[in-house]
Amino acid sequence: MLLVGLMSGLCLRGFWFNHEHCCWLSNETTFQERDRCPQWQSWAELITGKSEGPFAYIMNYLMYIFWALMFSFLAVILVRAFAPYACGSGIPEIKTILSGFIIRGYLGKWTLIIKTITLVLAVSSGLSLGKEGPLVHVACCCANILCHLFTKYRKNEAKRREVLSAAAAVGVSVAFGAPIGGVLFSLEEVSYYFPLKTLWRSFFAALVAAFTLRSINPFGNSRLVLFYVEFHTPWHLVELAPFILLGIFGGLWGALFIKANIAWCRLRKTTCLGHYPVTEVLVVAALTALLAYPNSYTRMSGSELISELFNDCSLLDSSQLCGYKQVNTGVDNSLADRPAGPGLYTALWQLALALVFKMMITVITFGMKVPSGLFIPSMAVGAIAGRLLGVGMEQLAYYNHDSVIFKGWCSQGADCITPGLYAMVGAAACLGGVTRMTVSLVVIMFELTGGLEYIVPLMAATMTSKWVADAFGREGIYEAHIRLNGYPFLEPKEEFEHSSLAVDVMRPRRMDPALAVLTQEGMTVGEVESLVESTHFSGFPVVVSSESQRLVGFVLRRDLLISIDNARKRQDGIVSASQVVFTEHTPLLPPDAPPLLRLRCIMDLSPFTVTDHTPMDITVDIFRKLGLRQCLVTHNGRLLGIITKKDILKHMAQMANRDPDSILFN
Amino acid sequence: MLLVGLMSGLCLRGFWFNHEHCCWLSNETTFQERDRCPQWQSWAELITGKSEGPFAYIMNYLMYIFWALMFSFLAVILVRAFAPYACGSGIPEIKTILSGFIIRGYLGKWTLIIKTITLVLAVSSGLSLGKEGPLVHVACCCANILCHLFTKYRKNEAKRREVLSAAAAVGVSVAFGAPIGGVLFSLEEVSYYFPLKTLWRSFFAALVAAFTLRSINPFGNSRLVLFYVEFHTPWHLVELAPFILLGIFGGLWGALFIKANIAWCRLRKTTCLGHYPVTEVLVVAALTALLAYPNSYTRMSGSELISELFNDCSLLDSSQLCGYKQVNTGVDNSLADRPAGPGLYTALWQLALALVFKMMITVITFGMKVPSGLFIPSMAVGAIAGRLLGVGMEQLAYYNHDSVIFKGWCSQGADCITPGLYAMVGAAACLGGVTRMTVSLVVIMFELTGGLEYIVPLMAATMTSKWVADAFGREGIYEAHIRLNGYPFLEPKEEFEHSSLAVDVMRPRRMDPALAVLTQEGMTVGEVESLVESTHFSGFPVVVSSESQRLVGFVLRRDLLISIDNARKRQDGIVSASQVVFTEHTPLLPPDAPPLLRLRCIMDLSPFTVTDHTPMDITVDIFRKLGLRQCLVTHNGRLLGIITKKDILKHMAQMANRDPDSILFN
Repeated sequence: MLLVGLMSGLCLRGFWFNHEHCCWLSNETTFQERDRCPQWQSWAELITGKSEGPFAYIMNYLMYIFWALMFSFLAVILVRAFAPYACGSGIPEIKTILSGFIIRGYLGKWTLIIKTITLVLAVSSGLSLGKEGPLVHVACCCANILCHLFTKYRKNEAKRREVLSAAAAVGVSVAFGAPIGGVLFSLEEVSYYFPLKTLWRSFFAALVAAFTLRSINPFGNSRLVLFYVEFHTPWHLVELAPFILLGIFGGLWGALFIKANIAWCRLRKTTCLGHYPVTEVLVVAALTALLAYPNSYTRMSGSELISELFNDCSLLDSSQLCGYKQVNTGVDNSLADRPAGPGLYTALWQLALALVFKMMITVITFGMKVPSGLFIPSMAVGAIAGRLLGVGMEQLAYYNHDSVIFKGWCSQGADCITPGLYAMVGAAACLGGVTRMTVSLVVIMFELTGGLEYIVPLMAATMTSKWVADAFGREGIYEAHIRLNGYPFLEPKEEFEHSSLAVDVMRPRRMDPALAVLTQEGMTVGEVESLVESTHFSGFPVVVSSESQRLVGFVLRRDLLISIDNARKRQDGIVSASQVVFTEHTPLLPPDAPPLLRLRCIMDLSPFTVTDHTPMDITVDIFRKLGLRQCLVTHNGRLLGIITKKDILKHMAQMANRDPDSILFN
Repeated sequence: MLLVGLMSGLCLRGFWFNHEHCCWLSNETTFQERDRCPQWQSWAELITGKSEGPFAYIMNYLMYIFWALMFSFLAVILVRAFAPYACGSGIPEIKTILSGFIIRGYLGKWTLIIKTITLVLAVSSGLSLGKEGPLVHVACCCANILCHLFTKYRKNEAKRREVLSAAAAVGVSVAFGAPIGGVLFSLEEVSYYFPLKTLWRSFFAALVAAFTLRSINPFGNSRLVLFYVEFHTPWHLVELAPFILLGIFGGLWGALFIKANIAWCRLRKTTCLGHYPVTEVLVVAALTALLAYPNSYTRMSGSELISELFNDCSLLDSSQLCGYKQVNTGVDNSLADRPAGPGLYTALWQLALALVFKMMITVITFGMKVPSGLFIPSMAVGAIAGRLLGVGMEQLAYYNHDSVIFKGWCSQGADCITPGLYAMVGAAACLGGVTRMTVSLVVIMFELTGGLEYIVPLMAATMTSKWVADAFGREGIYEAHIRLNGYPFLEPKEEFEHSSLAVDVMRPRRMDPALAVLTQEGMTVGEVESLVESTHFSGFPVVVSSESQRLVGFVLRRDLLISIDNARKRQDGIVSASQVVFTEHTPLLPPDAPPLLRLRCIMDLSPFTVTDHTPMDITVDIFRKLGLRQCLVTHNGRLLGIITKKDILKHMAQMANRDPDSILFN
């Protein structure tokens, strides 16, 4: 990202180059030299002309904090002023929208524009947040706006949702350069209903996105992947133990993070803290900048950090993480395990501090009123933990290569432990613990790193992480936020495990007044109007007669009101005393009666019905699979009541001892 | 495979070593020498003591044909004698079973044992078939047998189907060493209903399978992948044109193959050809061996061929495919494009002949009465075509590196075209054309080859191939075989596009006698028995009374017969005149009446219903998503008729102008 560069200095070639690109173009050939090319000047150099010494350091520090505050202020102000929906990651809301709920303006053009701008600002401000979730939201906005151009999609909501599923795949595809991982992410995490047709359409969309990305070539290496790593050693069976340990760490951290983050967000919602979002963002940004600058691992951006941690050390590597002692083992193996030197010990201390810092700050950052993704921070936490464990294992193997554990596969002078691989596994485990993804996560990690041979370690860590985290609570971070915000989302993964029947959930209850129904003939326009006005239901069943209660169809409130209104305006002689008929045949009328209002055309002739004895688990299944909003309940062919999605969600909240009124409805 | 070795010779170290392993253990150090180690003796050497000359060649040729006939004879005899279900690939049948149809014995222990043995024999006999499809069948057999050990799965068919879905994933996982590809294959191609829970269970199963495979280490390289390739050059945008060309070839071949194979299988089914399966197998095996031996590319096994075609040529490569002229370009690039030498031209001719041969022989091989997979032969065809095109492109680039197309990215002495990559793309395209897989295919190719950077070429070729093939017919080979065999399979991918209503499909039709129903009270045991005996329906709706026709529930024929039978045997005084009641309350009876038979407990109180005006596309959707076998049709609360899965399949066949009576039912 261009603006990240601005945080630490300016390129004299043009302000749009960041440090690396600026120096890349310079003519110095040695690598060391190129890193400190004269065209790149830190802020202290620019202002005071000095590049060394404590004064310059403080100068740079202050400029860093200044830019952090500047960017985050701009981001939060833009979000508040123009598009309040542009904050957060957007994935919980998109999940809810794909399950059938409508949030007006959530995928509109203002959200698109503001989210794109503020995302760049927020990432550049050094806050502990990533760009992946918001990019999914941005892709869905684009898709939604494009849908409005085609009648086919504007009219049909189900088709539009399929397009949005594909857009979610595209979002991840461009965020990570991982097209297949994107499709699987959409399938596993975001989408509610994912027919096979959507699978290969998403696949096509992701293909085009990957292709476009490759043409633009943003990483400058003709590769699609963001963090390309090449490991030289296969892993050994014994290493599965530390990998599973990383899985356990990831699961624990995921569960803890979700609990802490939800508690913090609830605090924000319920106390006066929530009234000052701008101040909150500024305080967090200042705190982040203040604490992050002194530690080089927190100063760099999240993706740079991950990239460095994933990297395997070669002999020529100048990074502090590769500060091993040079040992001549006599064996010609430039990548053999070596003892740690002082550089590496410093790096390990810094990393440990960075781990604590990242763990703390991410909890309070996610959920603020700026666009904020969770992938990169989670992966950074896991990568740090993994790298620490990896270096530890490496040293253990180096000093104990004759012990029982290492004997046979890790002789002296051999390269047997790859700390970068541990970082990769740790990143997958932590991301898995937070989001509870499995297959899609492993595929994304593949595509990110190109480390295809490490399927089994990644799978083992991801599964362990999911199991451990599930033991503390079955919800991933997105489901937890959905519940926190009270969106009406019928979780497709959770099974309904109570033995209630449809009759226990339907309205009206035993004590309530009878269900408001229309009869297929015999009611007048005035009666229908007063029935509609006296209730707030969004639809009414039509029955043969109020005695027989045999169901004919279902009419939506909106259609009923519009039809009556139109008829009164255009059709001659429709008055309050006119009879409303829903039948095919015309009833016999006295000659002086006002003309009929025929409304069969607006009636849904195939409403879904279940019997009163249907177990609720089957009913919930029908609602999920067919995407229903309501369903009528019959007993021996007579209409008894109605079950709406709201009733089901309230019933489920009651069963889980939660407040049923916390659920939001449109 | 061990037995493949036997086809050409014997290892003196022990007959269980094949050529490569036999020589690997020998002490000769030079690569050339090791290939002709003294421990490995061809049949001619063993019998006559001579290893060169026309006589030895003919000797080896005859032994090759002998073994081919021997193995294929054993395979077909074993299949016919012990397990007729062990033939074919098994994937069409597993798809049908997962959609809810039951084929007794298809997943039994005999099928498992015989299929495992005959698969080894069939692959070793040199027939043009692969082991992947049958391995999926074998894995499903194992899963089904394991399911019988647990009550939870023995009783619940839906749960068992979930286990079978996971087993399909495991089958591909072990066949290719591709765990994620396996899960996606199960999702995209095999499974009918794939909830997210199954996704991560399959994932776990595939993980364990991959882990076991790695522990056994069958490929001897600590890698999971079957054909590990390393390409050195990224691809260029211009190359997309030949990749798409390969996609078109794959699509055309796929469509042609399906048409030809189905026509051949239909011929076998309808004419007397089908009465001599053993002769057929022997003739095809003899023909294959006769034609395959002279050409070294058809003599080697399918996976060896693919592996060789995927391989990139290095300078030291001794393969004929790498018979380039050595040119000193002055640039120090050992992998630069070189002009083709005579060795390569010979190889190209042989490959072209092999392509024609493989295309022909696979059509008549797939569907014979031996276990036969389609993956390897399809991939071989594609890989040959791809390699030919790749070498062509390479020569074109070498001789025209100044033309408009190649200028700028392919200067003289550069390594710009990788023929191995073309082979890989071609293999994916042909497999895609035959099976119509998309995402799972790309992932399998990844995992097979480790070529993660080539997502976009693979995706482009697969999509093109699917589009081209779909233009000639929307069915993949498995769907085509399902239809050929008349299995009752409700295709989940195809949309129902006719405007019929439920009332048009339901039974009874307008002219038919009324639907056979039971009333909830008033019928005697004798009346019920005579109703059941006079019809062949597998279930009967229960209504309030025959006048009102209001639906109460649904009773299965089997439950009804068992209950009446039990009651007559055990309950005192149940005679033909006893009244059958389905109500909760006990009706008032005259004091001298025989005791009641209460059957409410066997009645399904929540049968699925749709109204007569429900469009058939919605009805079909409900059947698919809820996995129904029948659904009742009502009009204004009165029971009108019933729709079964059979009615829907017959209606769909009628709509597509096919014979509705070709559908098979159990």
